[in-house]
Amino acid sequence: MKLLRHGQPDSEKPGLQLADGRQIDASGFGMDWNENFFADPANMDGLRKWAETNADSAPVLEQGTRLASCVARPSKIVCIGLNFSDHAEETGQAAPEEPIIFFKATSALVGPNDNVIIPKTSEKTDWEVELAVVIGKKASYVSEADALDHVAGYALHNDYSERAFQIERGGQWVKGKSCDSFAPIGPFMATPDELDDVNNLKMWLKVNGETKQNGNTCNLIFNIPQVVGYLSQFMTLLPGDVISTGTPAGVGLGFDPPQFLSKGDVVELGIDGLGESRQEAVNA
Amino acid sequence: MKLLRHGQPDSEKPGLQLADGRQIDASGFGMDWNENFFADPANMDGLRKWAETNADSAPVLEQGTRLASCVARPSKIVCIGLNFSDHAEETGQAAPEEPIIFFKATSALVGPNDNVIIPKTSEKTDWEVELAVVIGKKASYVSEADALDHVAGYALHNDYSERAFQIERGGQWVKGKSCDSFAPIGPFMATPDELDDVNNLKMWLKVNGETKQNGNTCNLIFNIPQVVGYLSQFMTLLPGDVISTGTPAGVGLGFDPPQFLSKGDVVELGIDGLGESRQEAVNA
Repeated sequence: MKLLRHGQPDSEKPGLQLADGRQIDASGFGMDWNENFFADPANMDGLRKWAETNADSAPVLEQGTRLASCVARPSKIVCIGLNFSDHAEETGQAAPEEPIIFFKATSALVGPNDNVIIPKTSEKTDWEVELAVVIGKKASYVSEADALDHVAGYALHNDYSERAFQIERGGQWVKGKSCDSFAPIGPFMATPDELDDVNNLKMWLKVNGETKQNGNTCNLIFNIPQVVGYLSQFMTLLPGDVISTGTPAGVGLGFDPPQFLSKGDVVELGIDGLGESRQEAVNA
Repeated sequence: MKLLRHGQPDSEKPGLQLADGRQIDASGFGMDWNENFFADPANMDGLRKWAETNADSAPVLEQGTRLASCVARPSKIVCIGLNFSDHAEETGQAAPEEPIIFFKATSALVGPNDNVIIPKTSEKTDWEVELAVVIGKKASYVSEADALDHVAGYALHNDYSERAFQIERGGQWVKGKSCDSFAPIGPFMATPDELDDVNNLKMWLKVNGETKQNGNTCNLIFNIPQVVGYLSQFMTLLPGDVISTGTPAGVGLGFDPPQFLSKGDVVELGIDGLGESRQEAVNA
């Protein structure tokens, strides 16, 4: 299944994208795609059954409907830093010996096609196409072998980053990762059965039509079970939590000279099987 | 007013601590102390009126009732690093030129007297008494002059930290700050009118009866309006969000040799006007 959410920020509703591409409202199922929903795998089964019966009669989203983040605001967005060796290299850093963890404020979460807001005083707003993992069952001290039992699905994420805030303003990366609109997630969350091989998905990002990033999840230094298992040694991952697994080479910081976003720039990105998203840059 | 929460983890309820020290259930008011509650200052006024009428007839908490975190799980717990010069010095680091920001997973939130759980494989679990600020009205790009208009109240926080996870395991501090039970907050959140001067509060922490930290909020490098105003330049602070403002000298890492917690150790802490809390260390 492909789960989406739609509607304006104050009244977002659950929906589904069907196999034929139709996007429908799923309010009739009675739950939003949030912690409560993901906590019990029976809910996903129930949704599947609901869709079999109701998909054809449910309201189809009107053309131009805003897509919201495909999951409701989670308890946390955890990101993995420098998880592609080509990206570590372009930033001038060694590939990490164990996963680097940082957080992104959940207040940064927006819809996949919302504008990206360049923060006031920003001069270095940058892009990062990433595969996001959505946690299903609560995960605490899980082994790599069991980690995928705790994954509800996957989604496309652009881990926007203000490089001066992140690197030049006193220590911890979260400062440059948490601005409003810096976490567009979607268009949809695909359940694992929708993907042939999550470890072999092409991922790409363009700015104003020009390809900047062109990677593949097969090049993750720490793969998904490793990341989920590792994180769960340091914190409890709650249902609906989002883990963004890292970006390949081609971020603005890696160019010589570096390239950053300005008002009017258009960022488009996609991952095989997880759809595409598009953000236009505006000033705060 | 002094707002608290009580009951078991799956069924926590709002409450109040009255001027005479009585702790009462405030479920009758009809809201929990969460984002919705803090979003509208009229709710705090309404609660004050509710208490005038109902405090004497509301159920008094039974002896031994568990206190929960005094605020419901917020969208984020933001912490300020090295915000006392004596603490910066004991960790061997320079006092920061601008606030250092890090996050703590909100899944770490627990009641003020719950056990602190020493993580599996931990050898360096440490304490940090801190003044926590609870955000009222949403704050984005607010000035220092307006910052206190966005503060709902203050609470006692023990910013537990696993120093090996934080410092020796690959880069970002959040890895050592986010373990379950590492954020006991309370006993209560005091509204600003309860404190004579938030910039002059003694704060202390003892381990097994021996004083380890003995500071005063007057020594914060960046004071509360500076911290709130600064953070709001980088992210939107949502109602109910918690900002922990930093710890004075006397953490375990600062001793020679360093001192860390073991099973059975008892940590007690307090801040003038914000009550006391007590955690006993247990193994995960």
